[in-house]
Amino acid sequence: MSSKHFLPSDTGKLVPNCLKAITYEYEFMSLLEKEKVIYNNEFDCSRVALISGGGSGHEPGFYGLVGSGMLSAVAQGDIFASPNYKNVKAAEKICHELGDSREWAGCIFVITNYTGDNLYFGMAAQDLIARFGSEKIRLLRITDDVAVKKDSNSLVGRRTLAGIALVSKLMGAASQNGYNIDEIFEFGQKVNDSTASVNAGLDHVHISGHSMDSEFGKLGRTQLEIGLGIHNEPGVKKLDYIPRNEELVSTLLDMILNKEDEGRGFFKYATQDKFVLLINNLGGVPIIEEKNILYTTLETLKVKYNIIPIRVYTGNFVASFNAQIFTITLFNVSTAATKTFTTDKIFDFLDEHTNAVCWPNTTFKGKSFIKNDRIINHFEGYDDDVHNTLKDSSQDLKMDPVLLENIVRTAAERVIKKEPDLTEWDTKMGDGDCGYGLKAGAELVLKKLIEDKIAASGSILNVLHVVLNIIKDDMGGTLGAIIFIFMKSVINKIEDLLKEDPSQNVNQVFATALPFGLETLYSYTKARTGHRTVMDVLIPFVNCFNETQDTNRAIQVAYNAAEGTRRLRPKLGRATYVGGLDEQTILPPDPGAYGVYEIISALSL
Amino acid sequence: MSSKHFLPSDTGKLVPNCLKAITYEYEFMSLLEKEKVIYNNEFDCSRVALISGGGSGHEPGFYGLVGSGMLSAVAQGDIFASPNYKNVKAAEKICHELGDSREWAGCIFVITNYTGDNLYFGMAAQDLIARFGSEKIRLLRITDDVAVKKDSNSLVGRRTLAGIALVSKLMGAASQNGYNIDEIFEFGQKVNDSTASVNAGLDHVHISGHSMDSEFGKLGRTQLEIGLGIHNEPGVKKLDYIPRNEELVSTLLDMILNKEDEGRGFFKYATQDKFVLLINNLGGVPIIEEKNILYTTLETLKVKYNIIPIRVYTGNFVASFNAQIFTITLFNVSTAATKTFTTDKIFDFLDEHTNAVCWPNTTFKGKSFIKNDRIINHFEGYDDDVHNTLKDSSQDLKMDPVLLENIVRTAAERVIKKEPDLTEWDTKMGDGDCGYGLKAGAELVLKKLIEDKIAASGSILNVLHVVLNIIKDDMGGTLGAIIFIFMKSVINKIEDLLKEDPSQNVNQVFATALPFGLETLYSYTKARTGHRTVMDVLIPFVNCFNETQDTNRAIQVAYNAAEGTRRLRPKLGRATYVGGLDEQTILPPDPGAYGVYEIISALSL
Repeated sequence: MSSKHFLPSDTGKLVPNCLKAITYEYEFMSLLEKEKVIYNNEFDCSRVALISGGGSGHEPGFYGLVGSGMLSAVAQGDIFASPNYKNVKAAEKICHELGDSREWAGCIFVITNYTGDNLYFGMAAQDLIARFGSEKIRLLRITDDVAVKKDSNSLVGRRTLAGIALVSKLMGAASQNGYNIDEIFEFGQKVNDSTASVNAGLDHVHISGHSMDSEFGKLGRTQLEIGLGIHNEPGVKKLDYIPRNEELVSTLLDMILNKEDEGRGFFKYATQDKFVLLINNLGGVPIIEEKNILYTTLETLKVKYNIIPIRVYTGNFVASFNAQIFTITLFNVSTAATKTFTTDKIFDFLDEHTNAVCWPNTTFKGKSFIKNDRIINHFEGYDDDVHNTLKDSSQDLKMDPVLLENIVRTAAERVIKKEPDLTEWDTKMGDGDCGYGLKAGAELVLKKLIEDKIAASGSILNVLHVVLNIIKDDMGGTLGAIIFIFMKSVINKIEDLLKEDPSQNVNQVFATALPFGLETLYSYTKARTGHRTVMDVLIPFVNCFNETQDTNRAIQVAYNAAEGTRRLRPKLGRATYVGGLDEQTILPPDPGAYGVYEIISALSL
Repeated sequence: MSSKHFLPSDTGKLVPNCLKAITYEYEFMSLLEKEKVIYNNEFDCSRVALISGGGSGHEPGFYGLVGSGMLSAVAQGDIFASPNYKNVKAAEKICHELGDSREWAGCIFVITNYTGDNLYFGMAAQDLIARFGSEKIRLLRITDDVAVKKDSNSLVGRRTLAGIALVSKLMGAASQNGYNIDEIFEFGQKVNDSTASVNAGLDHVHISGHSMDSEFGKLGRTQLEIGLGIHNEPGVKKLDYIPRNEELVSTLLDMILNKEDEGRGFFKYATQDKFVLLINNLGGVPIIEEKNILYTTLETLKVKYNIIPIRVYTGNFVASFNAQIFTITLFNVSTAATKTFTTDKIFDFLDEHTNAVCWPNTTFKGKSFIKNDRIINHFEGYDDDVHNTLKDSSQDLKMDPVLLENIVRTAAERVIKKEPDLTEWDTKMGDGDCGYGLKAGAELVLKKLIEDKIAASGSILNVLHVVLNIIKDDMGGTLGAIIFIFMKSVINKIEDLLKEDPSQNVNQVFATALPFGLETLYSYTKARTGHRTVMDVLIPFVNCFNETQDTNRAIQVAYNAAEGTRRLRPKLGRATYVGGLDEQTILPPDPGAYGVYEIISALSL
């Protein structure tokens, strides 16, 4: 865990600033500042108010559960501390006052099952019951955690994990749809009883604003803990190794689904039941890992339990700062369903839009991923050669086929011969693959020369198209990309020039097209002369040929430039990471620049 | 940074599993599996396709930008590696094929300005331009980073940070609204030119799937870096201390807004311009800290620059695994606006709903937080005493006023006298506040006895209501909450009993009401007999009185129970953390239990 934090000067403002910031971000959220109550200012008390809360540090819990069709208000406490009973009462009162209070439908506290929350929400509830009667004030505890076994339950009790998000969504939708307090309370109880969760974590979390040195409960570098809480409560099992996802997820699902586990067996289900899966990220699990946990959970559920959830949710629901902990929550829709709240209705409730921050609006349209046709394995035709060959043979650039073949073969052979040098130089100054890449391309070009007789017609454009395809498909790396963009752009220009005037000679055409390729390249790379890259050869060669149309002179310029890279210090790319270079160090030439010079040199034939 | 990760057995599956998981979660997203392309399967190619992409590890970038009114598709590369050009072409082709391809409106690549992305999107662009013409294929680089100064810009260039989310949202909305490729491209360019970002971080990030020991670039425990990139690229400035948010945010805003900074000054603005603020969390900043950064940024903008943004967004847009890094992005709506895309239209575009995962649907209704009336400072009346006093004086429980006052005074005095013992015991086994809490309450009771003569009428209920209010407001702690819930419930029951039959005598009424209070308490706490809490006295006292209606006998039971707590080991609450207890250790009594016994003992008068 990291003990470093971004904090305000007055760390006592951490919670108040957070709550104030939220009102700037979301128009439907208002704050009772002193009472630390966030409420949905669009709520109407003719609907049953649903109020929760808890300590801060669990963001986006609990304010993230507030919104249309979810919670009406939350009372936030200080860091990991329950809100006090007065603030809970303030939350009830503000909801009570939104809309026409003559139509007040009552209030359910949906609370986390921790000691302080029980007592302070309890105080508020008793106080309000004395005033309004127990038919208008209810209290529902969320108890989805299955980590602690039944026999040790008497003292710790089943804690609240991410299940509160599901329960809040469903009770909130029921409230939005006008059900009464008895119906919603009973429904909430059934949903809670049909929900099971368990956590796994790589470390406890360092609490924002606390001493940097306080690292109570920190796990070792190779430890992992199962069943831990959301406030650094220790788990039920500590492993001295970090299992891979398949093993870990399997262990966690067993804690939820194993019917033989007499200490647990909290979660009732039959295989044909309908399930919802929710993966809660407690703040510090990289999303790519969160998605991998989702993937492995789906696979394990399918293979081991024949369960395919109908809905899947991931994200931050109830976090613990930036803890590297996640929760797997399973909800059995079938056991929660009643005559009033059928499975279909429950899915409708899940799918109804809410503006609550933590709820993913995944917009399912009645379909489910049971038939996931959204992973496409076979997709083709996006890299057909059709547009990488000669467009129109009437617009071609021809030369003596024997000479053309000779030039191409010589270029390829020189690159192959130079490979050991290029590799050695690139090993010193880069990742060592430059020589091999060029050699592989050159060998393919030789093969095409012999097998497909690509030079036989004397078509320069045909040869260039074939070489381009080889570069594209088989060369790879930055050098391949640069040569491709350059050549592709040159060929496009040549074809345009020939369309305008097919009679131009080879030198004329290249003299005009080559600078165009360079211009295109300039927009894709910041490398220029002096940066110790292939550009050190390409730029002077193109400029010289453009000015003089003298091949041999341009080749000499290219040679000088390639040799000259020995004097250049790396400015770009991987070679810049090589340390210990000073002005006296003797460097090899840049292998990319030299490799391209070897190709160019064949043009003197 | 944490080097611990949740990984699949085959770490090579990290990216593929992630992409597959996404399709299970979001119905509108499909995946070309081999090509690692995520696309919006509801896209229609009569709209301009917007395609981006980049390395993995930035989740929810880049798939999170895909959705209605945002990007059409993204090509994902391996971890921190560019997608290859073929996959970019596959992304274009799949968009091209959605809907009626005769109405194809063209494609804009919206790319991150990193070397590989430039080259591989460049290859694809050149290839597609050769086929479709440059009027149908465009490439826009996002260059919002202002960290690197102009003079050193020639090589590194301005990088892409979270600005890509804003540009994608606005170009996507323009595409959705049917604008053509020229209009959208030009608009995108203007938005990009009006957007500036800078990062600050507490550490580089450890890359999922890489060696646990590779911690290249790790910052020290008290270091902070400014201007770092999204792939662990070093920043422009390393501090050897961690500034508080006010200083840090001020430094960052200066890099964006200081017009005198000749090396930067990338961001053009006038004070009356309209701004949008976006805070990007690179994955590992606790949300409470993210909101604090938002708050301080808003404050600093207002106080130092007289700028009040019209829209505010926070969240994960482009992350770097779970990096403790954030981005501040400012967008000047006024400089981006044109005749076609006015400032009003830009705000409409921002507010239009999208199902893209990373975009917060904050549902602003034309209002803005310039007039934030959503922080309420004065809210009252939620804890009025009105319902904590006698409801109906005809239903009262009376006794001799002198005796009543005597009992109450004695109870208070005994608690005050016992305070040093209680404090000593609680200091050994708890947090030491139990004695003070009880004493403070007792002193207030004495004051009310003398000043308000609360016992003068001989009304037991009146005295109980007053004491209850003192407990609620001035005692605090777990003990206060437990006593409150118990007493409140007892009083409610007494009032109900008197309503039924006002003639019952005091002992009868209490014998019936006390167990009711206990039952209520049982639902809020798991503490029972033997757990070394106040319940050890309360339970036997109530049970004995209920059975015998013999006050003195019940007091004796309570005394025995209070003394008996010396033999009990803590099972609940703070005292369980006290180590080194074995069966031989001699403990003091539980101070809560003993304090309540002292009160009870006064009933013998």
